[in-house]
Amino acid sequence: MREMSEPVDPTPTSDELVRGLAGLARDHLLDPPAGADPVIDFASPAELFATFDRSVGLGFAADAAPHPPGAVLAAARSLMDHSVQTRHPRFLNQNFAGPDPVSIVGDWIGAVLNTTGATFEAAPVFTLQEAAVLAKLAHLAGYRAGPEVDAATVDGPTAQIAPGMFCPGGSTATLYALQLARHRLRPAVNQAGADGEKLVIFVSTAGHYSAKKSAALLGLGSDAVVEIITDRDGAMRPKALDRAIAECHVRGETPMAVIATAGTTVTAAFDPIDEIADRCEQHGLWLHVDGCYGGSALFSPGERHRLAGVERSDSFVWNLHKMMGMTQQCSALLVRDPSQLGPCFAVGADYLFQPDKAHSTLDSGDRTFQCARRVDVAKLWLAWKAHGDEGFARRVEHAVGLADHARSAIERSPAFAPVGPSNFTNVVFTWLPPEWRAANADPLSALSDADRSRLHRLAPAIKRRMQSEGTAMVGFQPIDGMNAFRLIFMNPAVEVSDVDAVLAVIERYGEDEWPALA
Amino acid sequence: MREMSEPVDPTPTSDELVRGLAGLARDHLLDPPAGADPVIDFASPAELFATFDRSVGLGFAADAAPHPPGAVLAAARSLMDHSVQTRHPRFLNQNFAGPDPVSIVGDWIGAVLNTTGATFEAAPVFTLQEAAVLAKLAHLAGYRAGPEVDAATVDGPTAQIAPGMFCPGGSTATLYALQLARHRLRPAVNQAGADGEKLVIFVSTAGHYSAKKSAALLGLGSDAVVEIITDRDGAMRPKALDRAIAECHVRGETPMAVIATAGTTVTAAFDPIDEIADRCEQHGLWLHVDGCYGGSALFSPGERHRLAGVERSDSFVWNLHKMMGMTQQCSALLVRDPSQLGPCFAVGADYLFQPDKAHSTLDSGDRTFQCARRVDVAKLWLAWKAHGDEGFARRVEHAVGLADHARSAIERSPAFAPVGPSNFTNVVFTWLPPEWRAANADPLSALSDADRSRLHRLAPAIKRRMQSEGTAMVGFQPIDGMNAFRLIFMNPAVEVSDVDAVLAVIERYGEDEWPALA
Repeated sequence: MREMSEPVDPTPTSDELVRGLAGLARDHLLDPPAGADPVIDFASPAELFATFDRSVGLGFAADAAPHPPGAVLAAARSLMDHSVQTRHPRFLNQNFAGPDPVSIVGDWIGAVLNTTGATFEAAPVFTLQEAAVLAKLAHLAGYRAGPEVDAATVDGPTAQIAPGMFCPGGSTATLYALQLARHRLRPAVNQAGADGEKLVIFVSTAGHYSAKKSAALLGLGSDAVVEIITDRDGAMRPKALDRAIAECHVRGETPMAVIATAGTTVTAAFDPIDEIADRCEQHGLWLHVDGCYGGSALFSPGERHRLAGVERSDSFVWNLHKMMGMTQQCSALLVRDPSQLGPCFAVGADYLFQPDKAHSTLDSGDRTFQCARRVDVAKLWLAWKAHGDEGFARRVEHAVGLADHARSAIERSPAFAPVGPSNFTNVVFTWLPPEWRAANADPLSALSDADRSRLHRLAPAIKRRMQSEGTAMVGFQPIDGMNAFRLIFMNPAVEVSDVDAVLAVIERYGEDEWPALA
Repeated sequence: MREMSEPVDPTPTSDELVRGLAGLARDHLLDPPAGADPVIDFASPAELFATFDRSVGLGFAADAAPHPPGAVLAAARSLMDHSVQTRHPRFLNQNFAGPDPVSIVGDWIGAVLNTTGATFEAAPVFTLQEAAVLAKLAHLAGYRAGPEVDAATVDGPTAQIAPGMFCPGGSTATLYALQLARHRLRPAVNQAGADGEKLVIFVSTAGHYSAKKSAALLGLGSDAVVEIITDRDGAMRPKALDRAIAECHVRGETPMAVIATAGTTVTAAFDPIDEIADRCEQHGLWLHVDGCYGGSALFSPGERHRLAGVERSDSFVWNLHKMMGMTQQCSALLVRDPSQLGPCFAVGADYLFQPDKAHSTLDSGDRTFQCARRVDVAKLWLAWKAHGDEGFARRVEHAVGLADHARSAIERSPAFAPVGPSNFTNVVFTWLPPEWRAANADPLSALSDADRSRLHRLAPAIKRRMQSEGTAMVGFQPIDGMNAFRLIFMNPAVEVSDVDAVLAVIERYGEDEWPALA
């Protein structure tokens, strides 16, 4: 038996280090990279190992010694210097960018309070903020008559169950939604296991890969996902869905769910939810709307028509860490009938969820899969209180306005051509070599295989120049086998001049790199 | 077509607000609640609604207006004031407490840089930090010969695959581990779906409920989880496992995996991994070690014997956000054969994971289920560099020393009795009414049903007093149907005097509340 009589601080932390690190974070918060600052100070893995060797080393020895505060601070500076600057207005690389400063600091407050969202006991205010935010989001989706919550509606045995949950990302939310779908159709599976019946999920060819990943994890198998062709805008064709459902019956399989995508990954297409909902109601299928990206259109009176019919869906995932600039992560899974969350997910662990604790009906932990959860709600709640509905609407409209400008600039410029459809905040395009520009109104329509291959190799070459010079970051991906760039807007720091500058950079690198790819 | 010619800031953020919020977070970081500060300034949901009505309101109206900076700041202060102070040395309520200040600030740096861990492109330094930390953790688990990584071992087509991944919590890590187990045994299921074969998972009766939740989600069904009885210390009985495996064969079912728990939730028992590994090797079962809580014993030379045999497991989940004080969340799932991560989880989405991008073999995103991931590694990497192996060891040993002190104090005091086994950092006990103290060396052994019921109701009554007076927070849970308190140590701010003070508080409330429960 050890005895301790003296106060001990087993892991003394240098005040210099904590203040220094906090200062680095605060400086970045208040004065993020912009203008001529690099979007990335690119270094290869070998160069990064060498850089960190000058402070504390990237790796750990078998007996890793503590390092002095100055060396750890230097390492943190290297970390920040060589990270991708997602707040920079020339960062147009991902479906997130330009985190809201209120969200960043809201995240910090969540971190310093460091609790979990599973119970009212451990997270009283966060639990009520979740109830309030989920009610408001569900109201925007048309699931609830009103957004208001008060003590009587959230507390006590007759209180309403919150219309959803926060999840660690959109893939996880889709996984949970499909589990809810299976549970409604075959409630015995949760306890007894799958019996080999083929339950089928429909999603468009442009939908997210989390459908297949979820189907594999759920034991449905990735083959259970049937892809439905899209129209010219990249949206699911409802008549093709009709055929797929009929074929599914012919094969003796059981249609289970349709995933309608609101804002596809590459072209931001919106599936026609109302028409899909007609089919789901007719066939008794679960309708899940993957609004991870495009759900935020609901904030804008001018854009929300894109999700017409979402109120008829059974579940709806909405990543506020994408367009709305919440820090990673802030995913809301909304459900139209929240009474099924408990029966689908509960196991009733008695060491945690106890009816004899105060206000335990508010505990959310047994209505989802996770136990401990980071409190992702505080940052959203604070940002929403600061900006209001109108600030959130302006963020969306600013992004769409920039995309419209980019589409127009690409249309006007002989150096670029759009590739496929472009919707909402996304613009997909390619640079064109000078020799193709004048000849043909649609130069991409009749390329030789060699030309296609050369253009395909151009985007990575341009991207490497952007990275090595730190001038911009723009994503590319194959469209029908040929790489094209995707501009995607949501960062409120982006101005029209940034769009023009990024296009000019791509034009310059295109001219530089094209000859060498012959 | 909208055109924008003027710079716009669609969501202007008040400098006053951002600086004010950052100041609140920094003040809490540098001067956390302690001593006479309340562990919680408890308020009911109705009181919290009323409190926030004085600033910005908890809920959102249908047309939620922006609030001025001062009001949002006041709301943030209310949030912090009424949250549970998990850094307070009298917070002994959960299996996390006392977050490391370096971790908190490391989390802030991750938030302000706001990227995702899926690709080297978007997270160059974080990706290398993950490779370094996973190698070191895997070395501690005995999965790898050495912890060292360098540019050649992590980059390029012949590089080693990182021996695991970070997950959003332990339940999710166990879910992924069981998916790996199924994939090894029945590789066709991921694509073709489950065919009704009964695949069985074994876990002790004291194991975590995530086994059942995972089995339900995977389509195995919660009935696929067979619980194995434990010995007096709360650890799985290997001979009972032998019988359960044999019975499984008799039923025509297929044993798939064993979950050995290293640090059970209530009593911190450690299953005998070596003896369980013998069975797993004999029967070809996947061995998953749930070291969410107790994995951190590996940091201490004096405690690591508790996990003897972990190097023989196939997968091992270790929550660094528990004992090690990383902020929520920091869960590492380690796997002995990382080459299976790709085949089990990949779908190869071409818009994201592209071989023509620089250093794309480092991309971790297609070796796990999630796409975007918060970068949970930076805080652990920074804290480890600052404290070294020896600082992490001291944190563990300090916690065990406090538990030893608490066990000894409870043993000595007539006012308390231990309830069941207590191991490692956990101490489970009950207050005893004066009339039971002298009479019997083991007063709990012969209680009437009425006495048991009265003692069962005492813990919630004491807990309410702790909460309403803010003096301490200690968890309770039923043990054989009767509530008992659990002290759990890991917060480095806790001193011996705090342990004594918490016991004194429980004694006082016990004396106050007992008579009224007659």
